[in-house]
Amino acid sequence: MPDLTPDEFRSLGHLFVDAVADARAGIERHPVRDAVAPGTVRARFAREAGEDPEPLAAFPSLVEAVTGDADTRWQHPGFHAFFPANASLTSLLGELLSGGAGAQGMLWSTSPACTEVEQAVTDQLARALGLDETFTHDGGGGGSIQDSASSAALVALTAALHRAAPDPATGWRARGVTGAERVYVTAETHSSLAKAVRVAGLGAGGLRSVACSPGTRAMDPAALAAMLADDVAAGLVPVLVCATVGTTSTGASDPVAEVVAAAAPHGAWVHVDAAWAGVAALCPEHRWVLGGVNPAPDAGGVDSFCTDAHKWLLTAFDASLLWVRDATALPAALSITPPYLRDAHSDSGAVVDFRDWQVPLGRRFRALKLWAVLHGQGLSGLRAHLRGHVALAAELAERVRAHDGLELACDPVLSLVCLRASAGDAATTALLERANGDGRVLLTGTEVAGHPVVRVAFGGVATGPEHLEILWDVLSA
Amino acid sequence: MPDLTPDEFRSLGHLFVDAVADARAGIERHPVRDAVAPGTVRARFAREAGEDPEPLAAFPSLVEAVTGDADTRWQHPGFHAFFPANASLTSLLGELLSGGAGAQGMLWSTSPACTEVEQAVTDQLARALGLDETFTHDGGGGGSIQDSASSAALVALTAALHRAAPDPATGWRARGVTGAERVYVTAETHSSLAKAVRVAGLGAGGLRSVACSPGTRAMDPAALAAMLADDVAAGLVPVLVCATVGTTSTGASDPVAEVVAAAAPHGAWVHVDAAWAGVAALCPEHRWVLGGVNPAPDAGGVDSFCTDAHKWLLTAFDASLLWVRDATALPAALSITPPYLRDAHSDSGAVVDFRDWQVPLGRRFRALKLWAVLHGQGLSGLRAHLRGHVALAAELAERVRAHDGLELACDPVLSLVCLRASAGDAATTALLERANGDGRVLLTGTEVAGHPVVRVAFGGVATGPEHLEILWDVLSA
Ligand SMILES: Cc1ncc(COP(=O)(O)O)c(C=O)c1O
Ligand SMILES: Cc1ncc(COP(=O)(O)O)c(C=O)c1O
Repeated sequence: MPDLTPDEFRSLGHLFVDAVADARAGIERHPVRDAVAPGTVRARFAREAGEDPEPLAAFPSLVEAVTGDADTRWQHPGFHAFFPANASLTSLLGELLSGGAGAQGMLWSTSPACTEVEQAVTDQLARALGLDETFTHDGGGGGSIQDSASSAALVALTAALHRAAPDPATGWRARGVTGAERVYVTAETHSSLAKAVRVAGLGAGGLRSVACSPGTRAMDPAALAAMLADDVAAGLVPVLVCATVGTTSTGASDPVAEVVAAAAPHGAWVHVDAAWAGVAALCPEHRWVLGGVNPAPDAGGVDSFCTDAHKWLLTAFDASLLWVRDATALPAALSITPPYLRDAHSDSGAVVDFRDWQVPLGRRFRALKLWAVLHGQGLSGLRAHLRGHVALAAELAERVRAHDGLELACDPVLSLVCLRASAGDAATTALLERANGDGRVLLTGTEVAGHPVVRVAFGGVATGPEHLEILWDVLSA
Repeated sequence: MPDLTPDEFRSLGHLFVDAVADARAGIERHPVRDAVAPGTVRARFAREAGEDPEPLAAFPSLVEAVTGDADTRWQHPGFHAFFPANASLTSLLGELLSGGAGAQGMLWSTSPACTEVEQAVTDQLARALGLDETFTHDGGGGGSIQDSASSAALVALTAALHRAAPDPATGWRARGVTGAERVYVTAETHSSLAKAVRVAGLGAGGLRSVACSPGTRAMDPAALAAMLADDVAAGLVPVLVCATVGTTSTGASDPVAEVVAAAAPHGAWVHVDAAWAGVAALCPEHRWVLGGVNPAPDAGGVDSFCTDAHKWLLTAFDASLLWVRDATALPAALSITPPYLRDAHSDSGAVVDFRDWQVPLGRRFRALKLWAVLHGQGLSGLRAHLRGHVALAAELAERVRAHDGLELACDPVLSLVCLRASAGDAATTALLERANGDGRVLLTGTEVAGHPVVRVAFGGVATGPEHLEILWDVLSA
């Protein structure tokens, strides 16, 4: 057998765990981002893979030698760029067990454990976030772990296309798109929606950009209602409206309840992309992120809600959570069953086959890492994690307000602060470059109303108050 | 900080490694598949997640208590169902480092290491498989790690749709599908192609099923040529032809060179789905699986080639390898760049941004586990792994041929044997049920020409000659 024996794995595994622990413990000795020229890492590889096995005990130091001076460190506590990617050490323990099990949960029967732990954990999380019971598997909907918010948007769109097709028996599956289907976003919506629209075959013309309310970066519900009415009058078919809670650039949020109200008369699917901000609903004081998401007596609620555990919820990539309120919606659009996937349990209708909730057929046991996080942190630990970063953002915003050379580009949202140099665009661009040149922090820029802005997204697994001091040192210099 | 400290991770990590080693060492004490009723695992979870952290040291035994009598064990050496899912212990070591790094390689600049190791390792593997240099990043094409062969088919189709659109500047991205696009498969093609066609908006009518050559389960190139000509004459647009090498049901292969020759006059993209069988090209004696894939003086070669490292190449799910011969094809179809993803290195064109090769935006450092496998096994170890299973299949086929009550449904292919009871369909169905009822093995059924067949897919990480004896004991009883 060419693979390691369990005992070889035991001793090597200890070595590798130590390598991970050492790397995390020493990460601040490195800059967040190495200055590396394209091709540097590739050039260190031989043209051909080796014929013979090499000792695995040497592998961690080989990886360090090949990549150690040529990377961008997402787990560095000075990483405040993009949004965080919380590869918590807690979640890595769960991932270890998941790899050990090596389950493939495409069907319920190919891994009842993988399927049912995912159902149980997404139900628990839905309740902890305050999602309505209709989002749970117990309540006729349900959550699933997708690889990314981008893929979640794509499968939500496929379900929406199916539901929007005139023939409910065969739907869009039989007919394909007609060119009349339209999807509604704003200029602030994440590009993954445009990508989903493209992949789904709608073309750029299928994407409609709704205006934001004057002076905001949030969808104008009146503009949405008007556009929907015009499109329907023109014979077009509104398929999906995406409301974002916590936009990528500045953390703005679309008014979900008003979006739902505007979409309802046309039967359009409402998808909420809360990829980054959604997890904050674990904290009562941030529960506003769910505003309009749940069904109310006078409103329908949304059809799908997505938030990434792999951004800010202490769970290593990939683990994007997608909840739908109709458990049949995704399978209706996506299920195809050749003889080699036929299964008595599936046929009985008594189980969920998660292959029908996603594009890939195969799937790994990702719920284990989420379960490990819930177990090891408890909801109180998750809240403490989120609150720590929100407090850092509030403190940074206060300092920026009080500083002569800096100003806020907009109000901070949760753990995201957008700022600029008071002296203007060139100074803002220079500030970003100077900050990233320092090595102790990494920030990304964006644009607000055509002007450059520096984003500070707190949320690293190891980012604490001392890292705010370092950041402030860099920004205020 | 709610996460573990590196030192806490060190001691817990050792415990978890031991739990994985113990579980693998003891796996044969369990049946391959537990008889479990739907809902059993879910019922063991509380409605609400706990408020307080629980000791992580107890987590492995909690997982065992909740799932230990309710799973299907893909890593059990008696698992011969579907195709294998090689969660080798070697690859888990690489996965550990990958989780430790916690890199997110959506852009080159967000993790040069993740991007360039993936380029280097897919180039090395292309060469080891015998793929033409045009499939490498060095040679103007390149490999990427997708989550699955299903997703690989979808992105190949998006690239093909873009290339097939009449306006090369904006292509399909701007226009969307028109309903005239057609994709060509056979009845034996994996259902992931039908799913890709559906997700891409073409509808069931977009999928054309080409007849197989009489008496075979392989695409008839003359029938393909005729169908293509008819479709073009009818104003339809041939976009992609999928040639399968190693079908899911029986391991049959379409004649790739002839498919390429038929597709070439119409400019259709040729995708080779060798999800299971492709890795066998590492062995010179199985290099036939690449027949027609590489460009020859008188033939164009194919556009994309996919094989799953996570099936039979000792690499834990997910790691599907997709090579294309034009490095610009996927980004041309998939790239969308909002301000927050703008990047100087990307703009320079000197680097690969793998986000543009897939649907998801984020991506983890999956190349590390593949690199660990190449390092720890060497090509010779990989060949030994593959050859061991091919030998088991040959031996099983010989015994079936010599057995009175059993017969081969078709010639074995590599490590796949399809057999049936000589007494007919009912006896074959009973044989499958009896075998799976034994507990020591798990097999799946399929249909050949409308008749039930029992598939035996060797390939488990720990499956050796002794497991053939157990299987034979069960089958010949
Ligand atoms: C609002 C929003 N949606 C979607 C995404 C895409 O995330 P993923 O990588 O999970 O696809 C992001 C990523 O930053 C985001 O901020
Ligand atoms: C020939 C073939 N193609 C594609 C697939 C789909 O694999 P994945 O789970 O990687 O999408 C399979 C799975 O068995 C297969 O046999």
